Amino acid sequence: MSEARGPSIDLSPGTRLWRCETPMALELGQTLPEYTLGYRSWGRLSAQRDNAVIVCHALTGSANADEWWQPLFGAGKAIDPERDFIVCSNALGSCYGSTGPASPHPDGGHWGARFPKLTIRDQVRAQMALADALGIRRIKLVIGGSMGGLQTLEWALLDPERVESIAVIAASARHSAWCISWSEAQRLSLRADPKFRDGHYPLDDTPDAGLGAARAIAMATYRSPSSLDDRYGRADGATVFKGQAKRPDDFAVRGWMQHHAENFVRRFDANCYVALIDAMDQHDVGRGRGGVGAALAGLRQPALIVAVSSDGLYPPSEQELLYESIPNARYLQIDSANGHDGFLIDAAAMERSIAQFRGDAAHTGHEARFINATEVASYVG
Amino acid sequence: MSEARGPSIDLSPGTRLWRCETPMALELGQTLPEYTLGYRSWGRLSAQRDNAVIVCHALTGSANADEWWQPLFGAGKAIDPERDFIVCSNALGSCYGSTGPASPHPDGGHWGARFPKLTIRDQVRAQMALADALGIRRIKLVIGGSMGGLQTLEWALLDPERVESIAVIAASARHSAWCISWSEAQRLSLRADPKFRDGHYPLDDTPDAGLGAARAIAMATYRSPSSLDDRYGRADGATVFKGQAKRPDDFAVRGWMQHHAENFVRRFDANCYVALIDAMDQHDVGRGRGGVGAALAGLRQPALIVAVSSDGLYPPSEQELLYESIPNARYLQIDSANGHDGFLIDAAAMERSIAQFRGDAAHTGHEARFINATEVASYVG
Repeated sequence: MSEARGPSIDLSPGTRLWRCETPMALELGQTLPEYTLGYRSWGRLSAQRDNAVIVCHALTGSANADEWWQPLFGAGKAIDPERDFIVCSNALGSCYGSTGPASPHPDGGHWGARFPKLTIRDQVRAQMALADALGIRRIKLVIGGSMGGLQTLEWALLDPERVESIAVIAASARHSAWCISWSEAQRLSLRADPKFRDGHYPLDDTPDAGLGAARAIAMATYRSPSSLDDRYGRADGATVFKGQAKRPDDFAVRGWMQHHAENFVRRFDANCYVALIDAMDQHDVGRGRGGVGAALAGLRQPALIVAVSSDGLYPPSEQELLYESIPNARYLQIDSANGHDGFLIDAAAMERSIAQFRGDAAHTGHEARFINATEVASYVG
Repeated sequence: MSEARGPSIDLSPGTRLWRCETPMALELGQTLPEYTLGYRSWGRLSAQRDNAVIVCHALTGSANADEWWQPLFGAGKAIDPERDFIVCSNALGSCYGSTGPASPHPDGGHWGARFPKLTIRDQVRAQMALADALGIRRIKLVIGGSMGGLQTLEWALLDPERVESIAVIAASARHSAWCISWSEAQRLSLRADPKFRDGHYPLDDTPDAGLGAARAIAMATYRSPSSLDDRYGRADGATVFKGQAKRPDDFAVRGWMQHHAENFVRRFDANCYVALIDAMDQHDVGRGRGGVGAALAGLRQPALIVAVSSDGLYPPSEQELLYESIPNARYLQIDSANGHDGFLIDAAAMERSIAQFRGDAAHTGHEARFINATEVASYVG
């Protein structure tokens, strides 16, 4: 099996690598003998080691949270490097510095299809070990959207003593049949490419067509009818007869899909992608905890639950369930046409609400309830 | 190129074949030298030859309208073989008896990738020629959902003298960027299968993995979050640790997707599938007619526009635009969680409204306006 090349991973200069040589017993029964997490941090850990903020990225994201969530970062902002010690690590199973299927196998070659099955809880346990290694005693806030939102919920459940508040954005308590169907459509598209070889492909002959198709599917699920129509809708009355330079099938949205498909295969590994969507499909905060209701009822941290009004993948009904089931929750809906991707595109719309939530959470304290727990804020992005 | 086998097309015994030996000049510039339409009919053409009802099927449908729209058919029903002469033909470009890419080429072999590019208008012109051949002088109603709804709109525009009323269900005036993005995701998945060979595959070595993946994508777009969650949602608190017989990834919805992918490739040809989604993506009633608004404003027939409340592919806003733009229109919304497929699954919910629409349309006459044009009916399916 060749190690010649994988996707050309663009690790930012600020990314550091933390290696854990302690074997990790994974939730589904296998063991990871050792692992590395790529991570970035901003700000300084206080003398009391109590000012940490953990940021969790989405499916194909990296540790560069200050880039993909730029509107939330800065002096006086919701996430403030002058006040907070901010840590964002690349998820276990990914390929931006952390151990995953594209990483070297201890016995040579790369993990590939041999990589053990992960869950969201495994990813969070690795993040918890990194927090230990960094000396973090208290975590002011764990925040994440999409896959990062699933991790944020697990952080609150797995580390209740250390996590003081959470912000869960465009996520759900348990991966729905709807989300699982979209994962499966992507797996089927990837497997339509025989180069995938059930994951046993060499890194110099990767299943680019299949992975690109999977990414194209995902991109559509991240948007909404009106977001694509506003941006890529055809001109009214466009005709194929008027001698236009464009070919009849030259629709802008097709170019957008193809562009994302082509770009993605240069920056992501197919087995890593499958490892992450498999982990997401397993997501269920109620597993082993007596069900979703019991698990969420046990959360005591103040929780900000954020929905994007047009999210078709994790629709607001999912966040309403979180809001109604978590004892100390506040609900914010971002009015946006951008669909699921609104959690990134419209991040500026939630910045003030997150900042205020943090202030209120600090004021009311860890065990106190919000006075305004039933408030529903609507924010025009 | 082998003619050994294609998909095993299950033509019903009632399907007749009508052959047109007159070459057809296609909208995008090519010519089809001759073609066949597979069709079925029910009831008898009246002596005045004025009792026809044309039923238009959806993307992968066949002429067996009495099967896939069974709730609408029957004595006293919206479509009544004792009163109506009902005709449903398989669309040009498909593979259920009509000429398409899987059909024999005049020079030998099959058309395959050489098949000319079609539009919805071409499909309707072929249906019009069949209606001519059957001696149909007046058409009481043209009715169709999804692709059939696109054809229904073009019927009213292309044959205004003959078509007396239309029922357009879960369709749009122009294929949206949103719909086009889903078509493109399906093309990319099909092309991820190298057996597709840009359409130049032999019929005994077909791109089943790619076509199956495309179908799986389509199936998800036809449903809604709650329809899949209600049917395939995992049991609350299900655990992978309690010694269940199921494998951890054995989610019912994945089986549903795989089942549809596997079944579809046995009954459909990949080039036919592409021909039909290409035609749908070209759909624009405003092309060459001064735009969507001008085209729809010119319709004089009574039109029943039906939306499915949870349709995520052709959302109700598309049908609202039709309703607002067609001078003599009535709007019906089916309250259903079944998504786009509600136009089939919940057909019983619209049966009475279609029957009443037909009665009112006959009463008010071809040029008259509905008194209750602004009525919005909501129907619980």
